[in-house]
Amino acid sequence: MSTSPFVAALVDELGGRCRVVTDGDLLTSYRQDMATVVPGGMPAAAVLPRTTADVATALRLASSYGVPVVPRGAGTSLAGGASAVDGCLVLSTEAMNAIRSLDPLDRVAVVEAGVVNAHLDRAAAEHGLMYAPDPSSFEISTIGGNVATNAGGLRCVKYGVTRQSVLGLEVVLADGRVVETGAATTKNVAGYDLTGLLVGSEGTLGVITAATVRLHRRPVVPPATIVAAFGSLEAAGAAVAQIVAAGPDVLLMELLDGTTLRSIDTWKRMGLSGIEAMLVVQVDGRLPDDAALVATLCTAAGAVDEPAVSDDPAEADELLAIRRLAYPAAERLGQCLVEDVGVPVSRLPEMIRRVEAAAARHGVTVLTVAHAGDGNLHPTFVFDHGATGIPDPVAAAADEVFAAALELGGTITGEHGVGILKRDWLERQVGPDAMALQRAVKAAFDPLGLMNPGKVLA
Amino acid sequence: MSTSPFVAALVDELGGRCRVVTDGDLLTSYRQDMATVVPGGMPAAAVLPRTTADVATALRLASSYGVPVVPRGAGTSLAGGASAVDGCLVLSTEAMNAIRSLDPLDRVAVVEAGVVNAHLDRAAAEHGLMYAPDPSSFEISTIGGNVATNAGGLRCVKYGVTRQSVLGLEVVLADGRVVETGAATTKNVAGYDLTGLLVGSEGTLGVITAATVRLHRRPVVPPATIVAAFGSLEAAGAAVAQIVAAGPDVLLMELLDGTTLRSIDTWKRMGLSGIEAMLVVQVDGRLPDDAALVATLCTAAGAVDEPAVSDDPAEADELLAIRRLAYPAAERLGQCLVEDVGVPVSRLPEMIRRVEAAAARHGVTVLTVAHAGDGNLHPTFVFDHGATGIPDPVAAAADEVFAAALELGGTITGEHGVGILKRDWLERQVGPDAMALQRAVKAAFDPLGLMNPGKVLA
Ligand SMILES: Cc1cc2nc3c(=O)[nH]c(=O)nc-3n(C[C@H](O)[C@H](O)[C@H](O)COP(=O)(O)OP(=O)(O)OC[C@H]3O[C@@H](n4cnc5c(N)ncnc54)[C@H](O)[C@@H]3O)c2cc1C
Ligand SMILES: Cc1cc2nc3c(=O)[nH]c(=O)nc-3n(C[C@H](O)[C@H](O)[C@H](O)COP(=O)(O)OP(=O)(O)OC[C@H]3O[C@@H](n4cnc5c(N)ncnc54)[C@H](O)[C@@H]3O)c2cc1C
Repeated sequence: MSTSPFVAALVDELGGRCRVVTDGDLLTSYRQDMATVVPGGMPAAAVLPRTTADVATALRLASSYGVPVVPRGAGTSLAGGASAVDGCLVLSTEAMNAIRSLDPLDRVAVVEAGVVNAHLDRAAAEHGLMYAPDPSSFEISTIGGNVATNAGGLRCVKYGVTRQSVLGLEVVLADGRVVETGAATTKNVAGYDLTGLLVGSEGTLGVITAATVRLHRRPVVPPATIVAAFGSLEAAGAAVAQIVAAGPDVLLMELLDGTTLRSIDTWKRMGLSGIEAMLVVQVDGRLPDDAALVATLCTAAGAVDEPAVSDDPAEADELLAIRRLAYPAAERLGQCLVEDVGVPVSRLPEMIRRVEAAAARHGVTVLTVAHAGDGNLHPTFVFDHGATGIPDPVAAAADEVFAAALELGGTITGEHGVGILKRDWLERQVGPDAMALQRAVKAAFDPLGLMNPGKVLA
Repeated sequence: MSTSPFVAALVDELGGRCRVVTDGDLLTSYRQDMATVVPGGMPAAAVLPRTTADVATALRLASSYGVPVVPRGAGTSLAGGASAVDGCLVLSTEAMNAIRSLDPLDRVAVVEAGVVNAHLDRAAAEHGLMYAPDPSSFEISTIGGNVATNAGGLRCVKYGVTRQSVLGLEVVLADGRVVETGAATTKNVAGYDLTGLLVGSEGTLGVITAATVRLHRRPVVPPATIVAAFGSLEAAGAAVAQIVAAGPDVLLMELLDGTTLRSIDTWKRMGLSGIEAMLVVQVDGRLPDDAALVATLCTAAGAVDEPAVSDDPAEADELLAIRRLAYPAAERLGQCLVEDVGVPVSRLPEMIRRVEAAAARHGVTVLTVAHAGDGNLHPTFVFDHGATGIPDPVAAAADEVFAAALELGGTITGEHGVGILKRDWLERQVGPDAMALQRAVKAAFDPLGLMNPGKVLA
């Protein structure tokens, strides 16, 4: 394959400063993200800038040659947000992984986009602090990717999603201009909230090169963990509502459905038969009172057996293990499409019933876990490993799930983003006029439409 | 004065449905907001729509006649954000004051823009809930105004600013289209965050007609209040830093400077001589331990005398009274320009010193109070009641204050907004490229530039 003028210019300007990948075999690994049902196109090149100036150079070049750019963090997207398009430049932030500063007094850190979430959290821990947003992918996903998707996590019931931890951003626009947004203060209303607009923009408005984030004090007292099993989804849903209403300091509240529990049980033989729902809750407020309160509310809502309660970190880990088995248990069964709808908390049981009905109607397997405290569900559809793309019955069932979420006043995506997988659904959620505004905002940032084309906006 | 064709059309289409003010004397009351130094222009008319459809009609008419529109809530803006321009239509939300729904289970309310903050909070209280954002103007300012300015408040150290309580909006665009943003869920990443963009947009992107807001559980245990006096600003600043680092559950943390305390003492004779700074803190976490911790930290940082501590609501009210006297005490001295800069918390004492130095250099009086937990300061410049506009020495001192805030990594406005008063400073904070993005965003929403012209963007 002959080298295009763009690639030649890229190698010429950046080859001596940072890695530029042009080899076809190596480029293959930049095609896809973890939404394996999206095949992804073949990039013309991938670049691994080391500095913001490198990013600016790469974008200026891409813009002058009219080459689309796909920003990429760790590639853990479950929505196809980081999947390549043919002939694009993949801009990977792997080599931008410095923590530029960490101020324990003001609890603010400035980190480059390629810093892995867990690395930042560990650096914060050295000062008794923590970086609160903790997507389950925290050991591998990047701050840039987390910001670009407004990632949620287990702790976000208490600390909010990524948006709530981002004070400001350094961003390179499509034409190579470098812009800083926000301020290192918790309150700032100077002009429109460009920071908020960029958070969750999935690489379509610019490349985030660094983020100013707030850190929280790391709790010193370990949380208490409560696990309760229920004979019906409705009973578990009632427990969730009661806990939310009673208002203990909930750190995490996860719900596993019967199908998930059965698939774990088939694999690990944990004696879960007859259990139709399980709640895993952590509280870190007034202990042990709040833990006892949660256990009592679970019992009152109809938990089978006494809920397990522990404030010992090792025991808590064992109790949490079952939640961590949910996704691997699904993966054992086949290829997975992890969905991500959200509904008001009170509609959780109804939403899970709708998921089950849709799956049954189309004869497909679905396992649902939920960040119950936020009303965010992950129905995971399982199908044959051999399949390429989403099988029709799965697509049909997923469509019904989206429709049900909207009908119940919810959203088609709580935390994974629109990416490619949901772009045909966005307008159904937001309507044509808001859609026009979305397009106008996109055009304001990226008039040539080169940033991550085909993502978010269909 | 002959009626313009626009006003005639307005009366014709809306006069039978809602109040349309065209009388010159009555219109005078719609010229200004509480930034009395901004004179405001003379509106052509004011309209008080009752429904979203009325708002849409008014905006469609204004847009077709090319008439600028100034949205107005209660007119408590301290930045001139609601001040009229000559020949404009003032759109007042006074008559849109229904709470459309309040769901205690999901803790979500849908309220019209003209609902007064305190009314919503009281409606929430009937269900053991609260609306957390509490600007000091909460008894008079509207939810629409609070959203349009992203208002802060005393409780926002703990619960965040208005943005954190807004899940979605109903908005009428300049051309009369009605758009809904967001969802009734705490997590939602479907498309760009238009909700966040509209929050804090100060009426320049559209008219907010209703907001979907989240409510919090109303604390049942009253908070503990701690008041500590210090011989120096630095000692108080050290106490703030220590309290933030120790991390008790702070609900409110206010700092009063020496000049403020002296002006209160001259008025009320409270025996405050020799006191150079005072901290008023409320905690509502682990009581009484956290209260004792705060008191101990204040003493360790050099508080004069034993800090006063109480968890009795009546006593707490007395302790808080001194904070409430700060603004009236300034008003006794003359006309006030209330400033609103923010800095990282650790820079608070330095920032107050800079305020004092700037005031001294220009021979003007300044009193500073701060929402210390957020690093948000309100230096209040006092000058002659007779003055029209801002006297030159005050303007010069204020300019130095803005420059200092930016130098210390802060912001020109923490919660009051840009309005008219700070529009010349916005670009100095955000830079020319972000400024260009701001203008492009404005054009995306309001291509004719009719929404609240002259505010935010110079
Ligand atoms: C096992 C597993 C568990 C997961 N758990 C969660 C969870 O709990 N919560 C959750 O929210 N998500 C979760 N995810 C999804 C995924 O991890 C998140 O979306 C994560 O934020 C993506 O980060 P990344 O670095 O991998 O970004 P990528 O996947 O590389 O990119 C994601 C999107 O962001 C864009 N992007 C990346 N970096 C930048 C940048 N610097 N500037 C501009 N745009 C950029 C990309 O173009 C793409 O659109 C999970 C995924 C897996 C595989
Ligand atoms: C005594 C006093 C104390 C204050 N304390 C605080 C405080 O603690 N924290 C704080 O943040 N502020 C405070 N303020 C400032 C002011 O109260 C806030 O900015 C408040 O949010 C304004 O609400 P309002 O209803 O009065 O709006 P207005 O003053 O009428 O308007 C404010 C801005 O919002 C726009 N606007 C109003 N309604 C709408 C709508 N429906 N759609 C679109 N745009 C709209 C206006 O055009 C204007 O730009 C205080 C003011 C006073 C006088």
